[in-house]
Amino acid sequence: MTSSIYSDYPPQLTPEQQKCLVATLTDWSIAHGLAVRPSPALVSDPLGVLATTAPVTLFPSPFPKRCFEEALGIQTAYNELYSGIARDEEWLGKIVEELAEVDDFIAKLWDTHLAVKRECYAQDLSLGLFRSDYMIHIDHATPNSNPELKQVEFNTIASSFGGLSTQVSALHRHVKSTLQGSHANFTRYLFHNPAYRLPPIINQHSFPQNPSISRLAAGLAAAAISYGSPKSSSLELAVLFLVQDPERNVFDQRHLEYQLESEHGIRAYRLPFHRILTDTALAPETRALLYHPPEAPSTAIEITIIYFRAGYAPSEYTHPDAWLARLHLERSAAIKCPSVLTHLAGVKKVQQVLATPGSPHLSRFLRDPAVAQRVQGTFTNIYPLDESEAGLGAQKLALDPETAKGFVLKPQREGGGNNIYRTAITPYLRDKVPKERWKSYILMELINPPSLNNSILRNGKIESGSVIGELGVFGVCLWRNPKGKDGSGEILKNEEAGYLLRTKGRESEEGGVAAGFGSMDSVVLVDM
Amino acid sequence: MTSSIYSDYPPQLTPEQQKCLVATLTDWSIAHGLAVRPSPALVSDPLGVLATTAPVTLFPSPFPKRCFEEALGIQTAYNELYSGIARDEEWLGKIVEELAEVDDFIAKLWDTHLAVKRECYAQDLSLGLFRSDYMIHIDHATPNSNPELKQVEFNTIASSFGGLSTQVSALHRHVKSTLQGSHANFTRYLFHNPAYRLPPIINQHSFPQNPSISRLAAGLAAAAISYGSPKSSSLELAVLFLVQDPERNVFDQRHLEYQLESEHGIRAYRLPFHRILTDTALAPETRALLYHPPEAPSTAIEITIIYFRAGYAPSEYTHPDAWLARLHLERSAAIKCPSVLTHLAGVKKVQQVLATPGSPHLSRFLRDPAVAQRVQGTFTNIYPLDESEAGLGAQKLALDPETAKGFVLKPQREGGGNNIYRTAITPYLRDKVPKERWKSYILMELINPPSLNNSILRNGKIESGSVIGELGVFGVCLWRNPKGKDGSGEILKNEEAGYLLRTKGRESEEGGVAAGFGSMDSVVLVDM
Repeated sequence: MTSSIYSDYPPQLTPEQQKCLVATLTDWSIAHGLAVRPSPALVSDPLGVLATTAPVTLFPSPFPKRCFEEALGIQTAYNELYSGIARDEEWLGKIVEELAEVDDFIAKLWDTHLAVKRECYAQDLSLGLFRSDYMIHIDHATPNSNPELKQVEFNTIASSFGGLSTQVSALHRHVKSTLQGSHANFTRYLFHNPAYRLPPIINQHSFPQNPSISRLAAGLAAAAISYGSPKSSSLELAVLFLVQDPERNVFDQRHLEYQLESEHGIRAYRLPFHRILTDTALAPETRALLYHPPEAPSTAIEITIIYFRAGYAPSEYTHPDAWLARLHLERSAAIKCPSVLTHLAGVKKVQQVLATPGSPHLSRFLRDPAVAQRVQGTFTNIYPLDESEAGLGAQKLALDPETAKGFVLKPQREGGGNNIYRTAITPYLRDKVPKERWKSYILMELINPPSLNNSILRNGKIESGSVIGELGVFGVCLWRNPKGKDGSGEILKNEEAGYLLRTKGRESEEGGVAAGFGSMDSVVLVDM
Repeated sequence: MTSSIYSDYPPQLTPEQQKCLVATLTDWSIAHGLAVRPSPALVSDPLGVLATTAPVTLFPSPFPKRCFEEALGIQTAYNELYSGIARDEEWLGKIVEELAEVDDFIAKLWDTHLAVKRECYAQDLSLGLFRSDYMIHIDHATPNSNPELKQVEFNTIASSFGGLSTQVSALHRHVKSTLQGSHANFTRYLFHNPAYRLPPIINQHSFPQNPSISRLAAGLAAAAISYGSPKSSSLELAVLFLVQDPERNVFDQRHLEYQLESEHGIRAYRLPFHRILTDTALAPETRALLYHPPEAPSTAIEITIIYFRAGYAPSEYTHPDAWLARLHLERSAAIKCPSVLTHLAGVKKVQQVLATPGSPHLSRFLRDPAVAQRVQGTFTNIYPLDESEAGLGAQKLALDPETAKGFVLKPQREGGGNNIYRTAITPYLRDKVPKERWKSYILMELINPPSLNNSILRNGKIESGSVIGELGVFGVCLWRNPKGKDGSGEILKNEEAGYLLRTKGRESEEGGVAAGFGSMDSVVLVDM
């Protein structure tokens, strides 16, 4: 996919056309809850009553159909892989214990697991609402090469935007029909103007629906049902959304909550991370997690699932009680989404161990060689920076600015904001990181996404230019953990659960809409 | 219905309960498009990208079930009545021509009709999206009297809030299930607290769904289909929403537009009133209304229906071209919702002529005496202030502060803001209105609504206290006007179309959420 194919996409707009499209987007988005609470930098809103359109692209972005279908198609394999890693304490433990020496956050998570393990886990079910993130890679060294799907990272905790991305796909379908007129067919001119013709490769199957809300909520519902009857008889059962406070991305979460209620009759409560110890208690014997809503403190509600939309970042654990709170939740009989072990399975080091060239580990978790090969095909080369043979080789690559140009240096953290790119890697490692901490980083070959053009609507203003997209595929996986040393547990539910496309300016090196860099997008599938 | 029955409704809230409920309301409303653009007094938003929760009550308000069902049940009779008035040019003309002598706005509307009549109307179909507004009346003079349904006014143009009121009913059902817990039945304690029990008269049928969005959009769709094929061959057909600009209540309108598109495949465009002459033209011969979108000025779209959400107030006609623009639309072959005659049928004077004690006019339009009697039963006494016998009697009532206490004085205007109440009537008439203009006013017996308590959430703040509610019932009516002097036309579609409950503080004398006084509400039906 070379950019020239899409040089006429999206259409150039006259000021009147742009005004019309912006009004279409901003009104539709608010009418359909595709919204965020505005940034304090934009407007002061002490009562928290204002909302604004989530940053979105004006048009859906072209995405290779084959790569999109492959990303969706292998999500169940990825679910199986990471569920397998979370169930393989011995294998995961080796990686984690080495990291724990130099990474206090990972050490604390591991200690939390060990403490609960000593006492015995009170719940053998685990739920993962995962998201595997990819970019399209173009091998510039090989002329006419096909675009390839390459994984950026795999998220095992607090995977966000599944609540809004269903709406973004619907928004772009609305834009399409708005622009084309109700009686027009798909090759009709945009804005009825011959100059703005959609690329002829786009047809009516090019705008796939996105079932992320319904499937993620169905995953929570399946786990809630598997929880069974209340362990403390006659209590109301509910799901607990563990959240940050304040949370600008609250509507993303609320859409899942409303779906859970309207489609499955399951109630959810929201608990800010800092109130865990204030508002919850464990029942004696069963360790059922009892939630006491602040608005009804004498009431106890038994929690079936703790759905983490908070607690994933070290910065959330500054209060001395924070780790006590995490331990408290992990000890409970509630199903954790995710468990501490599943959280740990998402560290970058695991991704690197799987993806380092010649790695033998994938087949341990994916027994079907064909499946393992498909997953392997989405790996870009990732190297450790430790004292292993591969690690020493990678150190050489990183310390030479010429070879470092092709890489990104990543710590073990979730989310963007901490990555070091290209020629900045050499001085960063040399001057900022003590050598004994190098092993907490991974060195990842850069993905070369094709250049596309699009426009992003953010706070009512339009930014246009060269953009790159990152595709996230959601997955739902519910499994039973092995009891003691016996067996390896079993997977009870394993499904692909819709997608997210985030698009950002090409010059930006970081992703994450909440951080203010990216925008939400949807795919328009194109053949190659 | 005495207020004491509901003295424990709504429940008193602790600060924590109120915080929980406000978060529930503000998040749900934005996630479901129950929103308005914020007032400039609240926040500066030059790009028009912010939204906030429409003012709503925390709880649905108790409403007598019998009165609610009667209001819905007689809506088709009201549709028939006002459609009949609009088709009876001779009868309506007598009233209007008298008013026209002292009311320039009405004179201009009538002139517009006469001008088009001289040329012959190009469209014989008319659409009404009506709203009949009521209050509950308690006759304090009669002990233990039943609550009665009394009409406040009948709106024939720009009846608003049908797009949001469906959502308010859904919001209050959500609040109910949120407060009661998913496994609770309807008599379970609010907030799980014995002190906050719902009145036992409330059962699961007490929260009716509100189909206003779907039925109003279905009315527009039926008219669009009746329009038939394009008169200018091969043009795209669409509905035109004539709007104010800026419009804070835009989402109310957009919900109808989206429903029209998603359920009926019918496209709608929005045209600000001041751009009528810029962006539309009449086709020669057929007078088809051709719309040229500013974003595609070389394109012509043939308009099937002009849906007026603007153009109802004299203040919109300050520009010299405004009446030319209204005439231009009325001349067109588009179906007007409403036509000028239908607009004129909504003047207060018509309501007064029908409702003056002893009036013989109702039977002219409602031939079935039983139906006429039901409609009659919703009239409160309304008097003219002209030189007729009834008018001279009313002048006496109005000029004596003691008798004036039981009345409200209304001009011919749509919407609140112009009414004079009780003892203010006497000095107002005497000192501010020349006697020759008195006949443009009507004198209406005050309705005595029962006192209820509720809380209104407005811009994140809560106002609690004694409130009164106003029930609006929407109606859809599509009819064919008589050709020349022959016949009386025929009604093609006649339906009740959901409801609106607006609630305001009892001390306030004016309604209208957009004006900042009222709030949106929904009914919880109670037996008497």
